[in-house]
Amino acid sequence: MEITKRELYNFKDRKLPEKICFKPIGIIHTEFKTLKGIPIQFSQSDSIGTIEIFHDYEPALKDLDGFSHIYCLYFFDMVKPPVPLQSKPFLIDEIKGVFAIRTPFRPNPIGLSILEILEIKGNLIQVKNIDILDRTPILDIKPYIPQFDSRETNKIGWLHGKIKKKTS
Amino acid sequence: MEITKRELYNFKDRKLPEKICFKPIGIIHTEFKTLKGIPIQFSQSDSIGTIEIFHDYEPALKDLDGFSHIYCLYFFDMVKPPVPLQSKPFLIDEIKGVFAIRTPFRPNPIGLSILEILEIKGNLIQVKNIDILDRTPILDIKPYIPQFDSRETNKIGWLHGKIKKKTS
Repeated sequence: MEITKRELYNFKDRKLPEKICFKPIGIIHTEFKTLKGIPIQFSQSDSIGTIEIFHDYEPALKDLDGFSHIYCLYFFDMVKPPVPLQSKPFLIDEIKGVFAIRTPFRPNPIGLSILEILEIKGNLIQVKNIDILDRTPILDIKPYIPQFDSRETNKIGWLHGKIKKKTS
Repeated sequence: MEITKRELYNFKDRKLPEKICFKPIGIIHTEFKTLKGIPIQFSQSDSIGTIEIFHDYEPALKDLDGFSHIYCLYFFDMVKPPVPLQSKPFLIDEIKGVFAIRTPFRPNPIGLSILEILEIKGNLIQVKNIDILDRTPILDIKPYIPQFDSRETNKIGWLHGKIKKKTS
């Protein structure tokens, strides 16, 4: 049965959930079969791979091919909790809070990469800029919209002076 | 006991999880007490509010205050599954796949907003650009890094010509 109605829970029953559960909507196929050698940032990666959206969700891809980039949200399924709340990022030898770095070792190990769409065929999205382990479960796909998502700022905390100029 | 070690699961036990569960790391306090009247995009909102990180996670905020913006990932807890896989976005009268629009009604109702940090005091992050319902559970906070996260593109699919120029 096709679902057409968008429904909300009743406000009067609302309370903070103790646990929030999701189901993977797909899986990504990449060249990175082990954790060693994965690029530390998608923006520095030219690697190409394929997001396989499970067939149940294929209708949700309609007209995504008009966009150049997506946000891909995924689950770092190899991270074993609990994680430290502070650790050293790749680029400097100082301890930072994990909410101030992009480490996979986070209280909720959700990954966020912006990937370029090369082609969409059926339930398969061929993407570039991959920094993700092969067979990682995918949680969500959203269109990247520079008018909303691009922010100009030079206030980048501990990263100041640590990033090589991006070639364009 | 403080956790200092970052551990991984064993690769040989790896399989696709059927269910992926998280715990809220905080809650956001905003002026939007009902769904009606919430800005449709954070980039269009000047609304100010506070992310309350639960005390257990406060150490994870160390040095986040050096950044101007964060990604805030949150759970659309009012969305009652199942959701339609295609629907009409706000800006046009056409049916699109939900992975090609930014609707809260998604198979995994995860929200993503880029918010400006105004001040961090203890476990409280005062933020601007809010488009989020009051008392929404927070899943993750990541620093926004324009060198990684800003993409120039004019390929924005069905949104082409539908976005008013952003004043700066």
